[in-house]
Amino acid sequence: MDLRTSRLELLPLDPDEHAEALHAVYGDPAVMRWWTCPERASVERTRQLLTEELAGPGALLWAVRRAEDGAVIGVTGLLGGVALPGLTWILARRAWGRGFAAEAAAAVVDHAFRHVGHDRVEAWVESTNTRSIAVCRKVGLTERGRFVQRYGHRDRPHEMIVLGRAGTPDPVSVVHLQPVVQVVDVAATAALLVAVLGARVSFIAGEPAHVAGIVLGPWSTGPGLRLVRPPRGECAPVELVLDVGPGFVGLRESALASGVAGVEPIVDQPWGRREFALRLPEGHRVVLSTPS
Amino acid sequence: MDLRTSRLELLPLDPDEHAEALHAVYGDPAVMRWWTCPERASVERTRQLLTEELAGPGALLWAVRRAEDGAVIGVTGLLGGVALPGLTWILARRAWGRGFAAEAAAAVVDHAFRHVGHDRVEAWVESTNTRSIAVCRKVGLTERGRFVQRYGHRDRPHEMIVLGRAGTPDPVSVVHLQPVVQVVDVAATAALLVAVLGARVSFIAGEPAHVAGIVLGPWSTGPGLRLVRPPRGECAPVELVLDVGPGFVGLRESALASGVAGVEPIVDQPWGRREFALRLPEGHRVVLSTPS
Repeated sequence: MDLRTSRLELLPLDPDEHAEALHAVYGDPAVMRWWTCPERASVERTRQLLTEELAGPGALLWAVRRAEDGAVIGVTGLLGGVALPGLTWILARRAWGRGFAAEAAAAVVDHAFRHVGHDRVEAWVESTNTRSIAVCRKVGLTERGRFVQRYGHRDRPHEMIVLGRAGTPDPVSVVHLQPVVQVVDVAATAALLVAVLGARVSFIAGEPAHVAGIVLGPWSTGPGLRLVRPPRGECAPVELVLDVGPGFVGLRESALASGVAGVEPIVDQPWGRREFALRLPEGHRVVLSTPS
Repeated sequence: MDLRTSRLELLPLDPDEHAEALHAVYGDPAVMRWWTCPERASVERTRQLLTEELAGPGALLWAVRRAEDGAVIGVTGLLGGVALPGLTWILARRAWGRGFAAEAAAAVVDHAFRHVGHDRVEAWVESTNTRSIAVCRKVGLTERGRFVQRYGHRDRPHEMIVLGRAGTPDPVSVVHLQPVVQVVDVAATAALLVAVLGARVSFIAGEPAHVAGIVLGPWSTGPGLRLVRPPRGECAPVELVLDVGPGFVGLRESALASGVAGVEPIVDQPWGRREFALRLPEGHRVVLSTPS
């Protein structure tokens, strides 16, 4: 099905027909700076990539053609093989800065809601990719969460933002989750989390302290937990997994330097993560995790 | 200290001098729609409010004067009595839509970093206040987290976004936190969380399942937890506090309707929250919490 906007025509993607024009996109390192794989070395490799992207179950992709001159300037659509409808777009560098990406993506979202029957779409955008975040904003997608990812061709992990737009508002919305962690010495554990994880104490109450709110970062809110003194002195041990970005290795060094007793070695886990654990005095296990 | 931008002069706020002009701002329901208190009924009440805002420890507020006509069109600055430097602005409706708020706020951020010595500023914006979110974006503040709040004069709670800008990047960044919850039947607990909380199962592994990733919402990421079968059959009980918005009451009804055994009554807590708890079969306590 063709889609039309005021300045663009979206044509069902055909790798044989479109690869040559689109190699200007997929062969350009400045465009592929943000992609899940490096730039393609040839038209043939671009054609392969387009064929693979179309092969994912549920993939629905269009070549983006500019009406004024008939130039094929990019691709947009819905990703295949993903758990939730995933909005995608890519645009030749010469076509950046004129609102084409948002115009094309808006047509895809409209199609997804009206004709495909989706009730939500989301896009995953690297946190430093301000152009694509602006595209999301124009198309009505707002931030829903963050996680850390590493692309196979890159040395370092990066922070990803998940942005979404729902066709109808969700009836229930859990905005924040805090585990309650029982510790014998609330003030000492709070100080340890500040020293090792750069945490912030958002509140602390009692003398000696029996409850504290901890934010695992420098802001008023964010990933966090509540420390409490248990009613009967025994602490039920909990395990927390923290998703950490590029600071992973430095974090372990600062934990060792601060004299925390139970800093375990870094392990390459079979599920594609590098992890190490800290043990708090009460036996709680805090797992620091980053993509392998 | 006066501050200047290309179109604005920022003058140290003086309630006696500025209240009359600013009553057009603080007396306007369309402006105060987003404020922590209702519109002021008189110039005298506006003067009181300005005096109170200036009295907070560390408050640094300026009246915003338009250079072209000398009109006082709003207030901007840093809030007093807050844990982290809090950026604030308010603007007369007749001055909206011309970029004045961002221009004034940018001058305040610059002053905060260069002259006050702050290394970060943040703004708290209601999630539906798209104009103020756009101001944040222009001034370089990005989302850091969310929470639920209720203003004293409103019937219902609302979702707040915390947006921040750091002078220097933070060395450690915990992007996400997941508690690990031990349960006897991973698949059954996952199904229960889907039914009661509108959760999503992001992954589930093993036959029978021994681990599952749960997102407490419809998106790929967001507040969530990991369910695991314990190594020796005994489950260490944990407590989780979930911050919930307007869906709070409906959530309890759906929990009761779904036949979850341990749905406790709603309690008005002395710390300004309405809360009720669900008990999972293993004794885990899930506290649903909303502002009173």
